[in-house]
Amino acid sequence: MNRDNLIAQIKKKKSFLCVGLDTDESKLPNHLKGEKNGVLEFNKAIIDATRDLCVAYKPNLAFYEVMGSKGWDILQETVNYIGDEHLVIADAKRGDIGNSSNYYAKTFFEKMNFGAVTVSPYMGYDSVKPFLNYKDKWAIVLGLTSNIGAEDIQTKELNSLLSIGSEGIQNRQRWMQLYEHVAYELKDWGTNENTMLVVGATSPDRIEKIRNILPSHFLLIPGVGAQGGDLDMVMKKGLNSDIGLLINSSRGIIYASPDKDFATKAREKAIEIRVLMEKAMKDNKLV
Amino acid sequence: MNRDNLIAQIKKKKSFLCVGLDTDESKLPNHLKGEKNGVLEFNKAIIDATRDLCVAYKPNLAFYEVMGSKGWDILQETVNYIGDEHLVIADAKRGDIGNSSNYYAKTFFEKMNFGAVTVSPYMGYDSVKPFLNYKDKWAIVLGLTSNIGAEDIQTKELNSLLSIGSEGIQNRQRWMQLYEHVAYELKDWGTNENTMLVVGATSPDRIEKIRNILPSHFLLIPGVGAQGGDLDMVMKKGLNSDIGLLINSSRGIIYASPDKDFATKAREKAIEIRVLMEKAMKDNKLV
Repeated sequence: MNRDNLIAQIKKKKSFLCVGLDTDESKLPNHLKGEKNGVLEFNKAIIDATRDLCVAYKPNLAFYEVMGSKGWDILQETVNYIGDEHLVIADAKRGDIGNSSNYYAKTFFEKMNFGAVTVSPYMGYDSVKPFLNYKDKWAIVLGLTSNIGAEDIQTKELNSLLSIGSEGIQNRQRWMQLYEHVAYELKDWGTNENTMLVVGATSPDRIEKIRNILPSHFLLIPGVGAQGGDLDMVMKKGLNSDIGLLINSSRGIIYASPDKDFATKAREKAIEIRVLMEKAMKDNKLV
Repeated sequence: MNRDNLIAQIKKKKSFLCVGLDTDESKLPNHLKGEKNGVLEFNKAIIDATRDLCVAYKPNLAFYEVMGSKGWDILQETVNYIGDEHLVIADAKRGDIGNSSNYYAKTFFEKMNFGAVTVSPYMGYDSVKPFLNYKDKWAIVLGLTSNIGAEDIQTKELNSLLSIGSEGIQNRQRWMQLYEHVAYELKDWGTNENTMLVVGATSPDRIEKIRNILPSHFLLIPGVGAQGGDLDMVMKKGLNSDIGLLINSSRGIIYASPDKDFATKAREKAIEIRVLMEKAMKDNKLV
């Protein structure tokens, strides 16, 4: 899905919600637990219940790989079931030397038909580049994550100017935190049509800093819901004239109820978020 | 495989070679190309030809995932075929928030019976911790990789002292490159019995710096062979009193010949490397 289509979907649905399909076999409702196709049935029910309320789905690969080759089949069937009207993001956090990254890109974009993949920036441009060679596909690069370990590496203050091939280097300040440096690198690596940045909803200052570095890029915000975070704050600091946000909720939606009504409750939670999104878009005259 | 067993295997075989099973379906010898079990047959032949010459095997997941669920089955059969006398490393470069990393660790260690997984440090300690909770298993963390993109992120000079929970902080210098900071973090995150660091064979200075930070850790060195690198230099700068090195070669060994003699030629290449390793160990009175 390209940028224009994504924005059109957001305006049509008045929602920039991404539903995280982190489907944990052990957390299925009782009536699906132990069923042969339990995870797939669960995903289909969640998708049916939220399709008109969200613009993206994001399965986290960890929950599928743990099921072995069966998990990969379920993942593929889930992607197929979602169809073409949503951005389907493989939350895979891949990243390797060019030759291997080529194969990861081929796997997710060509073989499985995902629209986007999350990618780690640690190995630099040539590890991300293979994901940028596909028309209307996205590399969503980790910037500032929402876990406590972000402080171990991502928030270190560094000298950003020891960089190779940075076109915007003359406008760049010398000292910044690593996640800011990654945001600057992203501008060199790709465009606002093939890259997004992952930014945890942990602090208004940090979202504002990244929005200043990347005024027109989409940001993927995890951590609203079960991981904490503040939807209003994120929208206040993160919205731009093209919306520019995808806000993910996983557990808060898909595990809203542990019973047979899980899909109905998931829909209710998704509506709660969508209503707030519509209000924010209207307040900012974006719809 | 625990540290003592690994060292014993190295001394017995007079080799610290790791064979990278980056088996690319499109690069199979002609007689195996298009065969139903071509990749698995290839892997088995390589393993049979090199088993006594190496102490570790490292399949890169990119090459298996691209085959879909079939690839995961081939990967599992390859791990099973290798058996218990080698350290089997999933070169997966995973890393996610704790909950997801738990599942990755479970996948590779419990379900698939790998002995080690490569992990990205970008998301910090809590993303690596789940891999450290398994007895006799290893998290092999990316430090300095051998690709050009390492210079985009890993070699940035940063302020290392803005760290939380670093026991060794009083002995730590303030300014260092990110890969050095990651090496220091590794000392806090785990021990020399459950963590190793990936260090590309790109410069003697850098290997020396890391060896000074991590005197007793094993280092996994990729990039000897097809990616360039200098075996003698790495051994000179990297060997410690417990050997402390695993040196990987992938394409240089497994694609030594494109014909029916691929396994024989792979063995010849592995012998060439093992001979140099034996000499270095003898010169350093390590065997």
